[in-house]
Amino acid sequence: MKKSIGILGGMGPMATADLYIKILAMTRADRDCDHIRIYIDSDGQIPDRTAAILYGGEDPVPEMTCALRNLEKCGADCVLLPCNTAHCFLPRLQALTDTPILDMTRIAARRCRELFPGRRPAILGTRGLLATGLYARAMAEEGLDCLIPNDEEQGRLMHLIYDVVKASLPMEPEKETWRSLLEGLRARGAEVFLLACTELPILANTLELDGPFLDPTEELAREAILTCGYELKG
Amino acid sequence: MKKSIGILGGMGPMATADLYIKILAMTRADRDCDHIRIYIDSDGQIPDRTAAILYGGEDPVPEMTCALRNLEKCGADCVLLPCNTAHCFLPRLQALTDTPILDMTRIAARRCRELFPGRRPAILGTRGLLATGLYARAMAEEGLDCLIPNDEEQGRLMHLIYDVVKASLPMEPEKETWRSLLEGLRARGAEVFLLACTELPILANTLELDGPFLDPTEELAREAILTCGYELKG
Repeated sequence: MKKSIGILGGMGPMATADLYIKILAMTRADRDCDHIRIYIDSDGQIPDRTAAILYGGEDPVPEMTCALRNLEKCGADCVLLPCNTAHCFLPRLQALTDTPILDMTRIAARRCRELFPGRRPAILGTRGLLATGLYARAMAEEGLDCLIPNDEEQGRLMHLIYDVVKASLPMEPEKETWRSLLEGLRARGAEVFLLACTELPILANTLELDGPFLDPTEELAREAILTCGYELKG
Repeated sequence: MKKSIGILGGMGPMATADLYIKILAMTRADRDCDHIRIYIDSDGQIPDRTAAILYGGEDPVPEMTCALRNLEKCGADCVLLPCNTAHCFLPRLQALTDTPILDMTRIAARRCRELFPGRRPAILGTRGLLATGLYARAMAEEGLDCLIPNDEEQGRLMHLIYDVVKASLPMEPEKETWRSLLEGLRARGAEVFLLACTELPILANTLELDGPFLDPTEELAREAILTCGYELKG
């Protein structure tokens, strides 16, 4: 039985489009009808996740629940959250629905072990995500010890995520910021870079610097295709 | 009052993603919350429109109605159809709902007159679309006389749309097919090329040949942003 996907999106919208395109591009399909049925609620009004986790900002769960209910009404068989930081709220959301929500952080950690055995991953994400320790735990469950960016590096990541990608500004002028960030982490022992904010694959793809990178959005797309009973493109 | 968009998509899925990204890229937005709420039903099971129009294929309206109902349940304030050929069925769909469905063919014809005054447009689309005469009528309402590809040219367009873009095959090997198609139409009087199948802007963007082109998907995105009370990016 083939299943459909619901994408609880808008966090941010370009990251949602990135996930949607990755699912389409990775599905074995010769015709429109070979593609998975996908429902998207691209809801930019979901309150900022890092602000909620760290600075007493508005709880995003009520607005996420509204989007979740829309996906349920459409008939989604599983739900994807294209925002790593939002995974902090996954247990609360999952408690509200019987529709399974795929956990991108666990999927990415498992794939990191499979694809980069023995390599130490650096977790590139928002301050909110890193404060939760979500990826450190997911990696530990896979037997991996990860490197967390320091405060200055987190500041640079927040700049790239919020002031550049989310603000739809040109990325090319930030190439040196990105390059030196990766170099600094590499010097401290990083052997693979986890693009653990869904805005970062867009940046990494545009700036084309050396990784290696692991892209949780791509791994979530892959898992969703298989979960729904479709085949990956060869 | 800011409004939301529903995209009745999947015809094909990549064209739906193209429209979604164009809306995001063309909206004046510095933060996630500056973006329009967008609901998408990406439904690849909608029967082929050209097959229904020309060859007695299954009527797509029942499946399109199912997707329309999903967008209504989400609360969409207007509906977009990112498939030019599907506009043949717009009057039947509009009769089923009070939610306005924006007419991409009329929007594109008006913009063709505004952006390329006095130039003769060639309509590049599917055999189904061209058989309906939809664009010829929309252009005539704007006082424009258009050029319709001949049978051989329509065959080449169907190849590019179905065997290349919809089949997710590399487009680069088709550069000569595309170039000579445009040259032939130019020799017969075309002065601007209307990319009147939503798969064609993807092809035109990848192959980067001289136009000028008018992209109905982009014009639909522009109109939708303004209709919803948002501003265009400067």
